[in-house]
Amino acid sequence: MTVRRRGRPARSEGGGARERILDAAREEFAERGYEKTSVRGIAKAAGVDSALVHHYFGTKEAVFAASVEVAFAPALGVPGVVEGGPLDGVGERLTRFVFGVWENPVTRAPLLAIVRSAVNNETAAGVFRRLIVEQLLGRIAGRLDVAEGEAELRVSLAAAQLVGTAMLRYVIKVEPLASAELEDVVSRIAPVVQGHLSGVQ
Amino acid sequence: MTVRRRGRPARSEGGGARERILDAAREEFAERGYEKTSVRGIAKAAGVDSALVHHYFGTKEAVFAASVEVAFAPALGVPGVVEGGPLDGVGERLTRFVFGVWENPVTRAPLLAIVRSAVNNETAAGVFRRLIVEQLLGRIAGRLDVAEGEAELRVSLAAAQLVGTAMLRYVIKVEPLASAELEDVVSRIAPVVQGHLSGVQ
Repeated sequence: MTVRRRGRPARSEGGGARERILDAAREEFAERGYEKTSVRGIAKAAGVDSALVHHYFGTKEAVFAASVEVAFAPALGVPGVVEGGPLDGVGERLTRFVFGVWENPVTRAPLLAIVRSAVNNETAAGVFRRLIVEQLLGRIAGRLDVAEGEAELRVSLAAAQLVGTAMLRYVIKVEPLASAELEDVVSRIAPVVQGHLSGVQ
Repeated sequence: MTVRRRGRPARSEGGGARERILDAAREEFAERGYEKTSVRGIAKAAGVDSALVHHYFGTKEAVFAASVEVAFAPALGVPGVVEGGPLDGVGERLTRFVFGVWENPVTRAPLLAIVRSAVNNETAAGVFRRLIVEQLLGRIAGRLDVAEGEAELRVSLAAAQLVGTAMLRYVIKVEPLASAELEDVVSRIAPVVQGHLSGVQ
């Protein structure tokens, strides 16, 4: 057993307990949804004491937020979508990024869990808003050369096209959209997303 | 007590029991979601015996389908959206129809229940696909003068814009979209919906 200092443990301590908790949290939220998941259940699945979960994260909402953030940190941190090229290519980069997350089985499961939780629960919806919408979409809005408010509205309508397409293709599985070639879908959606961002309908 | 004939009761019998069951079902599905709702719970809420629910509808899935259908029958039956004008106005009519349903508190609650159930449960997703997508969207696809398959794909991408906008505005409540003036949202979304239908991006 490692010797614990008082106060917040450093992330390198605990044999990856924090990571194990986050992995367990993602699986629990994915399987049970936000409402039916408990800190105790997450602790049990991670093989740690509930107190350690509270110690690292605090509330269930905070564990949820952290597990969402970790799942998408690599993606959100990648400057490719927002800063990785000219503004008139943001539509296509954002579209490819979103479908990339959904097409990848590793990220699809936690994303589906987040969508389900956000649709079912106000608290989870708030986490979704803050992390996904404000972090990713806010950065795109910041690059648009239009009034505040107007930029955010355009970005949210662009996001709506992406969210809706993902819902119908991956969640509700509406045909022929669910089986359409990814490139075909991207080539139809990207210009629409770009049109929203540029304010051209 | 009314004298019951054998076999399927006529709809006029039973003091509106069928309607009471459907009302109760809508409320139960809205409150508990598809999975946690039971035929017994619906029967209890409607003040009838479970056997009567089975008699009228059969399975829980069938009660769900019927309650969805009844909630949207007036809307789906209205020829206004699909046949009520020139094809180049379908985008705006469809957009106004969808937002009309969401803006109306009476239809918003059952719709939200359907969306939640469809996102959480494969069976409910199937009901959603058949009733909403195939009935409404299939009729629009039938009016497009392009190959089958292509028409359905266009319609589903148009629907994706509407579904996503409704999700972000009414369910996740992303700002400034959630508080934007309805007319502003319609004027930005309708041309995009029309663009999908016409195949112009």
